[in-house]
Amino acid sequence: MKQVQDFQKYFSEALAKERNIISVRTPKNLYDPVIYTLGMGGKRIRPVLVLMAYSLYKEKYADALPAAFAIEVFHNFTLLHDDIMDKASLRRNKNTVHIEYSENAAILSGDAMSILSYEYINQCKKGNFREIVATFTKTALEICEGQQYDMNFETRNDVSVKEYIQMIGYKTAVLIASSLKLGGIIAEAPQKDIDNLYQFGFNLGIAFQLQDDYLDSFGDVETFGKEIGGDILSNKKTFLMITALELAEGKIAEELNNWIALKEFNEKDKIKAVLSIYNQLNLKQKSQQKMTEYYNNAIECWQHLSVNDKTKQELRLLAERLMKRES
Amino acid sequence: MKQVQDFQKYFSEALAKERNIISVRTPKNLYDPVIYTLGMGGKRIRPVLVLMAYSLYKEKYADALPAAFAIEVFHNFTLLHDDIMDKASLRRNKNTVHIEYSENAAILSGDAMSILSYEYINQCKKGNFREIVATFTKTALEICEGQQYDMNFETRNDVSVKEYIQMIGYKTAVLIASSLKLGGIIAEAPQKDIDNLYQFGFNLGIAFQLQDDYLDSFGDVETFGKEIGGDILSNKKTFLMITALELAEGKIAEELNNWIALKEFNEKDKIKAVLSIYNQLNLKQKSQQKMTEYYNNAIECWQHLSVNDKTKQELRLLAERLMKRES
Repeated sequence: MKQVQDFQKYFSEALAKERNIISVRTPKNLYDPVIYTLGMGGKRIRPVLVLMAYSLYKEKYADALPAAFAIEVFHNFTLLHDDIMDKASLRRNKNTVHIEYSENAAILSGDAMSILSYEYINQCKKGNFREIVATFTKTALEICEGQQYDMNFETRNDVSVKEYIQMIGYKTAVLIASSLKLGGIIAEAPQKDIDNLYQFGFNLGIAFQLQDDYLDSFGDVETFGKEIGGDILSNKKTFLMITALELAEGKIAEELNNWIALKEFNEKDKIKAVLSIYNQLNLKQKSQQKMTEYYNNAIECWQHLSVNDKTKQELRLLAERLMKRES
Repeated sequence: MKQVQDFQKYFSEALAKERNIISVRTPKNLYDPVIYTLGMGGKRIRPVLVLMAYSLYKEKYADALPAAFAIEVFHNFTLLHDDIMDKASLRRNKNTVHIEYSENAAILSGDAMSILSYEYINQCKKGNFREIVATFTKTALEICEGQQYDMNFETRNDVSVKEYIQMIGYKTAVLIASSLKLGGIIAEAPQKDIDNLYQFGFNLGIAFQLQDDYLDSFGDVETFGKEIGGDILSNKKTFLMITALELAEGKIAEELNNWIALKEFNEKDKIKAVLSIYNQLNLKQKSQQKMTEYYNNAIECWQHLSVNDKTKQELRLLAERLMKRES
């Protein structure tokens, strides 16, 4: 099988062409934010997973390209609307769409992207079409549910780890899982493999998000690419914060709750203090343990794939690389 | 065939059950606005058209119910997001979703409705499934394009009648057309009939929207159900306003442009003055002429349907009633 970078290059070039095709659609100002969003970059992990899963079974991965587009367009649609809801002004160091254009443009162009993703789904010529549409739709709805849970958690201090894992399962993991599953469906892989691809992706997705949370608190400033401690400053209910709230007792609990309640504070002081609490509670290890648990689950599913090791090796390397990343 | 009211009653009852089913989904606060929106009432014309088109060919119209839900849920999704963009606070005398809940709830629940409509599409068991998905998706994207054109027209004074007809074609007519088409596809009607159903609906949709504009200016206060002249007050680029801008010359043109430019005015004075201009330019007749043109096109397509007159009579009666409505 080709290497991850080859698939990334292939997809990026195909996407560049697709952006040109979209750019002639009218009304222009509906599609400009679409082009802008799809041009913001990123690692394109999800569409690459569609292509890689397909390539486990068949050669002609161009057949999986429409599904890869659908996944990437839908993913970017969710980022676009999430940014409105979170009032985020920057993404990948660029203005978010509602800042660059307007809030109405962001709402309507997002809506168009959500439907555009189905236009790509319609272009899937191979595999069980009903299963493709059903998988995509189920996942899309779960992502909305995940975003709602995430927003609900903002105003709660009693979120459990179980609830958190369910939330990131919906918000992050199902799309990674479905990317792989769609590749399998389109390649007409055995049903058991399709299920294992999904579970591999789901567990990897959970580990991936736990890693995201970990890096936001314990990442290296040099390699992380953005400021450390953003989650701490906004009291985000990550695995770390939730576990800290669960484990902290006595004076530590009091200190943590004080920092959470404080409306005005010196940012560096808060980050330093909360990180110190995290360290006292051994959260670095606990978080890595949790990640390893899900990563190992993923690898077990990978092992069950009915494809020889040489062919499926690249998928495992990608999973490993995602776990070792520092940004 | 059953009468329109029978289909309306059948659909309303089925929708009430469906709202109960949706109401047990979680997270509850994602689905509450969906239930609220679907419970706001309305004539349910579009889903009824799905069922009526199906019934031209086959008896078991429950088979067309999922498509009818898909159309109604999608239609209500567009109203929900349009209301955010238009900053409308009331719809059918009830608070709009972004007022009743929050703007974030309106954005995310709207997104969920858009995807939920595909969940219903997936439940269509009869007819060419690829054609169903393709028809629905094309229409959904055109509706977004129509909404963008409509918003673009707000800041333009040079919109042509041709552009206006294209806009309402996308924003209003394609959904009415596709409702009928989906009914035909699911009933496995002859392709020529499917095309005629679409064209019947499209032309009827244009006539329907022209009628909407007409009633907003020339409707009877008693029967219209809301204040007359809303479009005039907001300088909305309707057929009437666009034609007035095209035809007005000399002093009349000057007066019309003055009213459009005026930021502060007495509402009754503006409505009275602009209506007087409309009357001087014979717009009542011109608008009725235009409506009749599209209505007659619709009836021609209806005549071409390969179904006996008795069976298809009810569809024509509905079209007539929509044209004679006063609210």
